[in-house]
Amino acid sequence: MNYRAETWATLRRLREQVPLVQSITNYVSMDVTANALLAIGAAPAMVHAAEEVQEFVGIAHALVINIGTLSPPWVEAMRLAADRAVALGKPWVLDPVGAGATRYRTATARELAERRPDVIRGNASEILAVAGAANATRGVDSAHASSDAVQSALTLARQLGCVVAATGAVDYVTDGVRTLSVSNGHPLMTRVTALGCSATALVGAFVAVHDDPLVATAAALGALGVAGEIAARDSTGPGTFRWKLLDALYLLDEGAMEMVRIAEA
Amino acid sequence: MNYRAETWATLRRLREQVPLVQSITNYVSMDVTANALLAIGAAPAMVHAAEEVQEFVGIAHALVINIGTLSPPWVEAMRLAADRAVALGKPWVLDPVGAGATRYRTATARELAERRPDVIRGNASEILAVAGAANATRGVDSAHASSDAVQSALTLARQLGCVVAATGAVDYVTDGVRTLSVSNGHPLMTRVTALGCSATALVGAFVAVHDDPLVATAAALGALGVAGEIAARDSTGPGTFRWKLLDALYLLDEGAMEMVRIAEA
Amino acid sequence: MNYRAETWATLRRLREQVPLVQSITNYVSMDVTANALLAIGAAPAMVHAAEEVQEFVGIAHALVINIGTLSPPWVEAMRLAADRAVALGKPWVLDPVGAGATRYRTATARELAERRPDVIRGNASEILAVAGAANATRGVDSAHASSDAVQSALTLARQLGCVVAATGAVDYVTDGVRTLSVSNGHPLMTRVTALGCSATALVGAFVAVHDDPLVATAAALGALGVAGEIAARDSTGPGTFRWKLLDALYLLDEGAMEMVRIAEA
Repeated sequence: MNYRAETWATLRRLREQVPLVQSITNYVSMDVTANALLAIGAAPAMVHAAEEVQEFVGIAHALVINIGTLSPPWVEAMRLAADRAVALGKPWVLDPVGAGATRYRTATARELAERRPDVIRGNASEILAVAGAANATRGVDSAHASSDAVQSALTLARQLGCVVAATGAVDYVTDGVRTLSVSNGHPLMTRVTALGCSATALVGAFVAVHDDPLVATAAALGALGVAGEIAARDSTGPGTFRWKLLDALYLLDEGAMEMVRIAEA
Repeated sequence: MNYRAETWATLRRLREQVPLVQSITNYVSMDVTANALLAIGAAPAMVHAAEEVQEFVGIAHALVINIGTLSPPWVEAMRLAADRAVALGKPWVLDPVGAGATRYRTATARELAERRPDVIRGNASEILAVAGAANATRGVDSAHASSDAVQSALTLARQLGCVVAATGAVDYVTDGVRTLSVSNGHPLMTRVTALGCSATALVGAFVAVHDDPLVATAAALGALGVAGEIAARDSTGPGTFRWKLLDALYLLDEGAMEMVRIAEA
Repeated sequence: MNYRAETWATLRRLREQVPLVQSITNYVSMDVTANALLAIGAAPAMVHAAEEVQEFVGIAHALVINIGTLSPPWVEAMRLAADRAVALGKPWVLDPVGAGATRYRTATARELAERRPDVIRGNASEILAVAGAANATRGVDSAHASSDAVQSALTLARQLGCVVAATGAVDYVTDGVRTLSVSNGHPLMTRVTALGCSATALVGAFVAVHDDPLVATAAALGALGVAGEIAARDSTGPGTFRWKLLDALYLLDEGAMEMVRIAEA
């Protein structure tokens, strides 16, 4: 498959359809996540009350659940929303932020992972923790390289029947059979908050407009990584980088797709 | 009335008096809203606990309630704060974010609208939903042009005895008798989050320093729209636009008031 | 002591050790605070659920508690986390945002202050309120100059056996015996949100890598103030200033330490 052409076709479809991406996410990244979705051409909606999450899933095109600042009322809403998404056949994506750091976080991530997400995206430590293979997360940063998590990602994908993305300097995306690598991005992306969260949100927007969640996930990660490379060009630090990244997402065009580096692993 | 001169006089008064604007608002827009208030010259305070909202209304000059990420404990605090504002004669402003999208959201918006706000500001879909005229919100974006909501805004303003602003490419502001149009702004304002929320917050700051909430609301929307036009001039995308907008609010001067386009509709 | 050399040595150590700073902070400043920590070289983690705060303290290098948008479940988590930090000998820092504005806020700030923080950082009004000397906070802004709070800061530091920093145009930092002044910063820092919160977070990062919390606190405030002065140089307003500040924190080097103005008061 020509992944550059596929990424561009998916991005064009996204901009035409403007999928409504419902996010139940953390307090830190709400603003950045919403702006990343808007910049690339999707429509964000942050809705988390148990009183309305299920009804809202009915009008959303994809659901993203991120446990970054979890607490019991939010987790309950996550359960309700995930189950409704599955019932309605809407794609949903899980970001198990910080899984492995505390028992509560790991248990919540695993419980949600079993509610049939279409995609799970995390850093290596988080994927290892959800897979039950390690307990070595350091806060919300990864204590492992993404390559360390490839085997666990494969196993998890097979067990749960979903796509698993372990992201890092190189991202690995697998559905348990096929595995893709995405070699885009820039080190400055680790010096600003919420880019993992934004990656997950963009995956939500891409799976909303593509039938194959494996390809959609790789395309979303490739597009964000390319935007990061473009934004880093003239950045003097993370402050510049943050706003240049939103501009880059907004301006992504067919020419930029030449930078996409997705390969079969 | 010379609305340009009036907008400038109100803005000058705001900067002299530095009104304290208490906001019970959503998680997504708190940061941007607070910075927009600071940039234009007001003082923001985000205070939402039921344990203190009423006492805080006593020291605030205006109250802004925004239901963007509502949940029952927050709605209870909104009720307490709104009622206290009315009891103390402090102006309060309602932003019924996403009214129409879910039953919970619509019901909450209507219940708060009946607690005598001085101003309700929403996009066309939200105003239609609060007025009971439609149920067609698409997430937090408007599925209607602001002109579609003029009649509902008029009816609602008369019913509730308040000012209603339906904002969009053109903003319509009415107290049920007089109607003003505000033709400022820029399309990039729809590609960043929280500008509707910021508009409502600025309305709060303007009504705190002006006796006529109709004129104050139009002036606030005009000032924000002009800042948006200035910010968009050299913006390469939404990332640039966001920080240029804060600079523009901070730098708004008498010369910029020539750009204000407020008219009797 | 050569405070410039000491600030630089502390900053270098921070960048080598990358301390994990657990923050239980307010919704408004989470994003900025986390990015300030990342920019200077620390690792932020926002974790607030009672179900996990204690366990997380075990992996954190410092704990920062900020009551900016407090509510009962958050306050309960703050208590649990603070007590665990003391039990484990991990440094913790309190930011009593808005103490004095409402009874609930003042009472919470005082109760937390008695749980043996290593450092309390607030503006003059907040320090006066925690010390029981005044009740004159205007929202979250200070109604007093920092010099007004020096005596109260001294008394409070002696009573509680901790470092107290009253920040403003000049910052005063005292452990009840020694007092340092920090004369860095720029007026634009008062026109953007969350810089007080960020200051407290950076204090957390610095005390995590320095044995003397008095010196660490002054160094953190000096470093942030210098970054503010650098960022303000070419800023046209608060929008520019915000992102330039993150760049400046990221780029702080030995040469910039010449700007640090810490003195024995």
